[in-house]
Amino acid sequence: MKTFKASFSSKTTTFWFNDSMLSLPARLKGERLIFVTDEQVFASHTRLFKNFETIVVPAGETHKHQGTVDRIVLQLIERKADRKSILVGVGGGVVTDMAGYAASVYMRGIRFGFVPTTILAMVDAAIGGKNGVDVGVYKNLVGTIRQPDFLLYDFALLKSLPHEQWVNGFAEVIKHAAIKDARMFSGLENTTVAKLKRDKTALASLIERNAKIKIRVVQADEFEVGERRLLNFGHTLGHAIENELALMHGHAIAVGMVYAAQISSWVKGFAQHSRLVTLLEQFELPTNARFDLDKALAVASMDKKREGNTMNFVLLNRLGNAVVHKIPIDDLAAWFRQV
Amino acid sequence: MKTFKASFSSKTTTFWFNDSMLSLPARLKGERLIFVTDEQVFASHTRLFKNFETIVVPAGETHKHQGTVDRIVLQLIERKADRKSILVGVGGGVVTDMAGYAASVYMRGIRFGFVPTTILAMVDAAIGGKNGVDVGVYKNLVGTIRQPDFLLYDFALLKSLPHEQWVNGFAEVIKHAAIKDARMFSGLENTTVAKLKRDKTALASLIERNAKIKIRVVQADEFEVGERRLLNFGHTLGHAIENELALMHGHAIAVGMVYAAQISSWVKGFAQHSRLVTLLEQFELPTNARFDLDKALAVASMDKKREGNTMNFVLLNRLGNAVVHKIPIDDLAAWFRQV
Repeated sequence: MKTFKASFSSKTTTFWFNDSMLSLPARLKGERLIFVTDEQVFASHTRLFKNFETIVVPAGETHKHQGTVDRIVLQLIERKADRKSILVGVGGGVVTDMAGYAASVYMRGIRFGFVPTTILAMVDAAIGGKNGVDVGVYKNLVGTIRQPDFLLYDFALLKSLPHEQWVNGFAEVIKHAAIKDARMFSGLENTTVAKLKRDKTALASLIERNAKIKIRVVQADEFEVGERRLLNFGHTLGHAIENELALMHGHAIAVGMVYAAQISSWVKGFAQHSRLVTLLEQFELPTNARFDLDKALAVASMDKKREGNTMNFVLLNRLGNAVVHKIPIDDLAAWFRQV
Repeated sequence: MKTFKASFSSKTTTFWFNDSMLSLPARLKGERLIFVTDEQVFASHTRLFKNFETIVVPAGETHKHQGTVDRIVLQLIERKADRKSILVGVGGGVVTDMAGYAASVYMRGIRFGFVPTTILAMVDAAIGGKNGVDVGVYKNLVGTIRQPDFLLYDFALLKSLPHEQWVNGFAEVIKHAAIKDARMFSGLENTTVAKLKRDKTALASLIERNAKIKIRVVQADEFEVGERRLLNFGHTLGHAIENELALMHGHAIAVGMVYAAQISSWVKGFAQHSRLVTLLEQFELPTNARFDLDKALAVASMDKKREGNTMNFVLLNRLGNAVVHKIPIDDLAAWFRQV
């Protein structure tokens, strides 16, 4: 086990890497822990929850809405959870986003922590305090920014992770490499999902490296007025097609990254487009999708990155070096059509 | 018009006293304002909203729930409100609580301000950043603490305020006097609701004095770990009977204050119980109510002021001097029975 602490504007979050979920009661002695997980994680790891108070919600992005958060709140009331209780979200990004949101509003905010069970949640979704739910097709339209007290990384939980979820998570790893870490990008070019599944040491180190990239960006700009926007690389189009095509998040943003890379080559002279496409393919991610452009643009126009008639769009100068570029919504439509 | 600025942990709130709601667009030049009000306020002041984008919600505490906030969010989406839009809640505490909450979670937080239209909202509810909704009988069980950008006091709006709402608001004025301002308490003993309705200067000065009491307490302890708890004087029992008996908030906490004053006399030797009762009566507030004690205790046990088996209960040493006293829930039941 390895402890790492990261300070944010109003809280220090403790990261326990290479730990076991069962050590949580000892690490948080004397605290009342209430767990939130989804039916799928609960079914795969029922034994782990044996001695824990656990709220189980339906699995999947389609349940990431206010109604599910309302159910968590009602269960907290039934269990007479008070302001000192700690909510622990165990699952992928959907669970951690909703658990963090429920904890942020229950009694105007109780403490919470996460045990991410997917690659995507470990390297991205569970880090940085963004939480919330979708409203219809609009991703994460409602939520707050509030940091968790802790994240515990239990790599044993990955054993039950379906292969497509491994692939899904590596999209955010490749995104981190593309915007922030050219050396990691080269490293990824020399490996595959299958190799990383076998090499637990390499995997643990890669996950920790990615967690720390995300942590540093969030520390620099917790409330997303600058630097943090870079993490949205591939996400404008990605979010716009994710719910419409019922794609996994990673698959949607892989397509979004290819589009953004193409626009980067036109606007910024980005010359490594093909390396990005090749790496995404090597990690079994899609690099194109059939979608209704007008529908996607309508969804994108409600994106949180929009400001009036311009979009804060993320482009690459080169691998490892990204920049926010303000694009008028109308131009964005024209660019997307040309890709 | 008189400007007053108050700094909180992450925001400075501007107070415009003695102003007109119609001056808002000039005060916030270039900003997109979206108003939220209720059917009652809208009907009484339709002309005021003529040139404003306005979301109208049903009036009354029974509509203070997640469903109404969901409706506000859907209307914000329909109107394509972005992160730079400012939500302006115009109304009593129910409206300002919901507008503040909707603004706090829409796109993970947009700016907001209030134009309080009731005495209660002017002196209490709209100040201090607490927002949220009820869950069933549980008052304000879900919400956040987030400060508004501004409060604008337009006393002309009070013209349409029903008499019972004047009375309702003075309960919080008397509470402020009881816990923080013995001199104001004496001043109140020399006036009445009717006199204050006629004397606009005295009223404006009283409202400003109360707003500043609330501001100072919140500045000292924004997240309610100490000092701010004093504002809950009368609120444990008050909240427990408010929804059950469908009382107005001020009426419920008037009864709660009488109970808390009685307990104060036993526990703290508080000797001015009868002055408090007399002043409440002078302001036409109830000093007793028939209620089901077991039901009230069940609701009180879910109160946010509970910590495990104890309640942070507010008692008076003397008028103008209050203290938080930890009372085991079981003792509280016994005390309430004896009052």
